[in-house]
Amino acid sequence: MLHVATVSELRAALKEVPGPVGLVPTMGALHEGHMSLVRQACAEGATVVASIFVNPAQFAPGEDLERYPRPLEHDLDLLSEAGVDVVFTPTVEEMYGSGSATAVHVEGPAESLEGAARPGHFDGVATVVAKLLIQASPDRAYFGRKDAQQVAVVRRLVADLDLPVQVVVLPTVREDDGLAISSRNAYLTAAQRQAAPVLFRALSAARDRFHSGTQEADVLEAGCRALIAGEPLVESVDYVSVVDADTMAPWGGEGPCLMVAAVRLGEVRLIDNVVLD
Amino acid sequence: MLHVATVSELRAALKEVPGPVGLVPTMGALHEGHMSLVRQACAEGATVVASIFVNPAQFAPGEDLERYPRPLEHDLDLLSEAGVDVVFTPTVEEMYGSGSATAVHVEGPAESLEGAARPGHFDGVATVVAKLLIQASPDRAYFGRKDAQQVAVVRRLVADLDLPVQVVVLPTVREDDGLAISSRNAYLTAAQRQAAPVLFRALSAARDRFHSGTQEADVLEAGCRALIAGEPLVESVDYVSVVDADTMAPWGGEGPCLMVAAVRLGEVRLIDNVVLD
Repeated sequence: MLHVATVSELRAALKEVPGPVGLVPTMGALHEGHMSLVRQACAEGATVVASIFVNPAQFAPGEDLERYPRPLEHDLDLLSEAGVDVVFTPTVEEMYGSGSATAVHVEGPAESLEGAARPGHFDGVATVVAKLLIQASPDRAYFGRKDAQQVAVVRRLVADLDLPVQVVVLPTVREDDGLAISSRNAYLTAAQRQAAPVLFRALSAARDRFHSGTQEADVLEAGCRALIAGEPLVESVDYVSVVDADTMAPWGGEGPCLMVAAVRLGEVRLIDNVVLD
Repeated sequence: MLHVATVSELRAALKEVPGPVGLVPTMGALHEGHMSLVRQACAEGATVVASIFVNPAQFAPGEDLERYPRPLEHDLDLLSEAGVDVVFTPTVEEMYGSGSATAVHVEGPAESLEGAARPGHFDGVATVVAKLLIQASPDRAYFGRKDAQQVAVVRRLVADLDLPVQVVVLPTVREDDGLAISSRNAYLTAAQRQAAPVLFRALSAARDRFHSGTQEADVLEAGCRALIAGEPLVESVDYVSVVDADTMAPWGGEGPCLMVAAVRLGEVRLIDNVVLD
């Protein structure tokens, strides 16, 4: 596995490789969610690039940028064992050098939910994803369904900037008890960890009701909230919403939709979602 | 000359052409300023693409989007005669299709001067230039020095988004009496047209003083304003400023600098600039 840290090294490394090229953008602290993307990229692509970059621009003020886990050696071992060809670990200076002044701003799917709760978050995501897609110029880029709104934002920016890449979205990987795997799960206390699966249980119950014919968003949302409210360690619910999968606006009753939710257990904020149809 | 109107046709046309590829982005209504870029691109590149797109996103509310000249057949003849290989004339729908929600936003060099006078203008410029550079993926892209702030914004976004293109900037082309050639000169009455060269005369006088040793920005600016004030058909001066060529901020006394100015003659707004060192 080739390890590069600058854009020029990355471009030099990718100049002569066989295609198609797959890119798996990550912030490191790799878990089974990331590794499912890496395995799919290795299965589909002749050359696989993984990036590890804890992107300051996508952390809102007061978020966990400083304490975000950075187990680089372990991450590199995992990527190497999985068959990744090139790992790209730029510094903040390399990505946002002197005088950097450009942001990619997505409205539409980036405005509600996480966008409303985390000011600047999706500008940071959109900017770094656009940069990585331009830097690595992959044929395919891999994202997890867990960050459903991020997926909608990335699809939007790829279409709007005409980036010649196929966005591949893979299912959320879960622990045995249903909790969506996330780097931030490590912040949970043992008791919170035991309580956390309530989020997926409540979303799954709503999905079952949807499939049984209850398609009124407000009814599904109220039922989901009631189930979450039964778990006292969940201190607040940021949102529970049935949304259009592309626009992330409240579902109008037609087309692909998701139920998305964000809750807080102590200082830890967890998000999850289920595909309804 | 191949004439294409969609991104997919453009990409298909450019798939097999010899490099290097040069791109000349224009809004049409081609004049000697544009043609100097086209000729340089033809001299340097194996394949030359010109785009014609009157970009609604870079017109501020109340500006001249509707009446902007669109002499397409004449433009195509000029490009064909000059040896352009591919001309790309997308519709607004092709460039900003259904649900489009992404903008490229540049701070820094885009904030002052034209950015302050024309709300949204440089977001529109940055977005369309980023799109064209991604669509055509040229080795070099050609811009005129007349739009000096646009040049600074494009250089900034190319660096910040890591677009693999060389930005080539060519000198302002002028009428015999010094007026910078611009599509908007056609809006001038005969009397305004006769008065308009005062702008370049005043800038040139400042440049001469600079080279003679007067390097205080406020002195140069006051002198330039006084010369412009001698022409009664100039109804107002939007700005006269000595600025850093990269940041477009007031010049700090070191590094490349420009004197930039914008004036109004009736409803017509003219801009021009001179390189001071």
